[in-house]
Amino acid sequence: MNNAYTRLCQRFRRLSRFGHLSAIAGWDMQTMMPAGGSEARGEALAELSLLQHQLLTDKENGDLLRAAADLPLTPDERANLQEMTRQWQQAVLLPAELVEAKSIAGMRCEHAWRTQRQANDWQGFSENLREVVRLSRQEADIRATANGTSRYDALLDLYEPGMDSQQLDSVFNDLKQWLPALLTRVVEKQSATRPRTPTGTFPPPLQKQLGLQVMQTLGFDFNHGRLDISAHPFCGGVPEDVRITTRYDEQHLLSALMGVIHETGHARYEQNLPKQWAGQPAGLARSTAIHESQSLFMEMQLGRSREFLEFIQPQVEAIFGSQPALEKDNFVALAQQVKPGFIRVDADEVSYPAHVMLRYDIEKALIEGEIEVEDIPSLWDEKMHHYLGLDTRGNYREGCMQDIHWTDGAFGYFPTYTLGAMYAAQLFAAAKQQLPAISEEIARGNLQNISGWLNDHIWQYGSLLTTDELLTKATGQTLNPAFFRQHLEQRYCS
Amino acid sequence: MNNAYTRLCQRFRRLSRFGHLSAIAGWDMQTMMPAGGSEARGEALAELSLLQHQLLTDKENGDLLRAAADLPLTPDERANLQEMTRQWQQAVLLPAELVEAKSIAGMRCEHAWRTQRQANDWQGFSENLREVVRLSRQEADIRATANGTSRYDALLDLYEPGMDSQQLDSVFNDLKQWLPALLTRVVEKQSATRPRTPTGTFPPPLQKQLGLQVMQTLGFDFNHGRLDISAHPFCGGVPEDVRITTRYDEQHLLSALMGVIHETGHARYEQNLPKQWAGQPAGLARSTAIHESQSLFMEMQLGRSREFLEFIQPQVEAIFGSQPALEKDNFVALAQQVKPGFIRVDADEVSYPAHVMLRYDIEKALIEGEIEVEDIPSLWDEKMHHYLGLDTRGNYREGCMQDIHWTDGAFGYFPTYTLGAMYAAQLFAAAKQQLPAISEEIARGNLQNISGWLNDHIWQYGSLLTTDELLTKATGQTLNPAFFRQHLEQRYCS
Repeated sequence: MNNAYTRLCQRFRRLSRFGHLSAIAGWDMQTMMPAGGSEARGEALAELSLLQHQLLTDKENGDLLRAAADLPLTPDERANLQEMTRQWQQAVLLPAELVEAKSIAGMRCEHAWRTQRQANDWQGFSENLREVVRLSRQEADIRATANGTSRYDALLDLYEPGMDSQQLDSVFNDLKQWLPALLTRVVEKQSATRPRTPTGTFPPPLQKQLGLQVMQTLGFDFNHGRLDISAHPFCGGVPEDVRITTRYDEQHLLSALMGVIHETGHARYEQNLPKQWAGQPAGLARSTAIHESQSLFMEMQLGRSREFLEFIQPQVEAIFGSQPALEKDNFVALAQQVKPGFIRVDADEVSYPAHVMLRYDIEKALIEGEIEVEDIPSLWDEKMHHYLGLDTRGNYREGCMQDIHWTDGAFGYFPTYTLGAMYAAQLFAAAKQQLPAISEEIARGNLQNISGWLNDHIWQYGSLLTTDELLTKATGQTLNPAFFRQHLEQRYCS
Repeated sequence: MNNAYTRLCQRFRRLSRFGHLSAIAGWDMQTMMPAGGSEARGEALAELSLLQHQLLTDKENGDLLRAAADLPLTPDERANLQEMTRQWQQAVLLPAELVEAKSIAGMRCEHAWRTQRQANDWQGFSENLREVVRLSRQEADIRATANGTSRYDALLDLYEPGMDSQQLDSVFNDLKQWLPALLTRVVEKQSATRPRTPTGTFPPPLQKQLGLQVMQTLGFDFNHGRLDISAHPFCGGVPEDVRITTRYDEQHLLSALMGVIHETGHARYEQNLPKQWAGQPAGLARSTAIHESQSLFMEMQLGRSREFLEFIQPQVEAIFGSQPALEKDNFVALAQQVKPGFIRVDADEVSYPAHVMLRYDIEKALIEGEIEVEDIPSLWDEKMHHYLGLDTRGNYREGCMQDIHWTDGAFGYFPTYTLGAMYAAQLFAAAKQQLPAISEEIARGNLQNISGWLNDHIWQYGSLLTTDELLTKATGQTLNPAFFRQHLEQRYCS
């Protein structure tokens, strides 16, 4: 049988093999490559990326996709065909010149940002950013026309298919109603009993040992993955060989530990994607937001729960020795500390959504053409003050220049952090209801049932189901932000 | 200007970028990849290899090569064109089915060999080897017809262009006259004063520290390369990012140390290939034999010289502490110990050529159809006894099954080890003559002049000159094995 669908499968399998090489060479660049190798690596990866784009946008693919749509396919095959079509459409829509111009402007902006951020140089940065925004608006325009949506929704769809700004507005408007007040309440409550700060240093090799132990507990498959160091932690590689990274701060024990738990959440999803769909679009993770839900499930729902923290605390003491700050109650309090701050990546789970909301407000208005790049700083200051009570005026470095996302035009990405947190809370609530012994199991470090549940409801489906279908199958309903509120109130206010 | 030559340069630059990805993914497979990733990696690399083959054998390349030959080119451009033509011819000659059949038979034979060798299972191994030999003879036949040479010479040409078995026969016939006697003499001489064996263990992290220090002394550029661990040491990566590996034996200090020096010789060649020819065939290393000459120059000529050993000895003591076996004279004696043994990769430089000669005799006869696979063991036994005085009967594991080369059909490769050793001796003799202070400089660990000399005479030329041209420019003559004999006699008999 060599019909249109089978031929498409062969073509996408080939693409996936090139994707494998891109993922490993990309991981290597962040973890192993000496600085002097970067130019040659950049050229090699660009060449590969061009090849992938050519193969994906091959004229014949359009004909094959149309022909395959008329074939009698199983529901899973149809889901695969739909993901193929999605990938193809996303790629063919943009003229090659725009793709290249975006890539060049993004690289220039990101490269300069690394020094401009240090220098707090908003003027210099904004010039490059203007060009990135101009091209991202062009992209959004083209995608919006094709999708029949607003410009911003067309970009959002790249990271969470099916989500739109109407739904997001409603989610964030709800959040705006109660989050600032909740945050104030929690901060006040916690100010009564500040946890002790651990003293001494935490040598990276020992932090790594702890991280590996915890990964083991969380079910990371070391036959299909590894842990390394990079400046910016990520989960990379391929499902058969998942590469997670962290960075160690000698002074702070929890940041790498929680980072490792977070990346292990991503990794377990990747490692357990459906094997029978390996190399096919349906075998990929559903979306950026669902991916984030899996990392936040591990880090926030499970990893920072009292049960889990009490389970790993003896291991922490065994490795680093005893001290009052590492005693159980204090250890839990450290991991559940809420402290509004300037930096998103350092934020606790209560203030995190505020960081996302303000970026969402700004980037949506920017892409829709309602504001311009020069309007960003004042909006940023206003919203930071409003949501988190912080004064960021003149502090671009820790303000609107802190993130990498906008530098290369990843508008529409930020909301997936909070969607992920909400999905995670909703999934955990459902798991808790369906697995009554879950808390005791976590307290014993026995995560088999909860892994099995995630596998049955999320991992094994890859992209065979939509986000709404996944959530409905797993929790009986589509996104319901009430679970997130409930989670925060239970953990931080009770 | 977009003439045939420029277009070829673009095409080969593109090929080189894909080669970059293949090199890094290949390095990763040997050093970083967890076992479970191997199937997906194999598929990805095979896909890339197929692409490279398709790009190289593209029908248009033949027309472009012919058109470019008529253009007015500089001598360097013409050398580049010649290397392009060489690569292209080597690739287009073989029918795709033969390439695939060879690859499958080679993988099967190599895979089975890993267990068959352990089990000393010659019968099982020989069945697979027969198929590899059958296909290698077909390959040799096709190449021989195209080159107008003998079958074996056509394979030899893949590893050392310009070399033929007539010249090799004369080199090896000369060796056979004097090497066995020299070996006996050295063994007898050394038996009078056996060096002490170092006691204690040598922890790998400390061995690595020593290796890195020595690499620094030898001029390895850590901004363009790194050192890691693999089961089989190699020099991989790309000129901009050279990846060398070693393996540490807790009981033996010298094996990893000398291995690192050896691979650093390969690495410095790669790191100093002509930058202006990067990505072009002319920018590649001249040949397997010249590559080996650079590693053996570093390891045998320089690294095992009394001057260099006395220079690094204090570093060895500083890291591992003092003991009688690490005192200067004993340390030198350990590194210059001659001890005929079964295993080629463990052989000293005096007995090494015997290992190569016997393989050369056998593989040449095998490819020429004068013997069959079943004749190998008795020939092996006879020649091992004759050259090294060892009895290998029935011991296939440490006999004719010890090497990986034949399993995937790399016939014609073995001679490059001894050619490399001879080139190295000839080059070192010339350097010594041209740089009178060389011995004192080595004794002080100052290798700037000798590096400069290698760069001026070998590295900077890439493939712009032939082996004969390189040797003649550097030493005033083509291959002259007398220098190798002189070197052995001076080091081991005086």
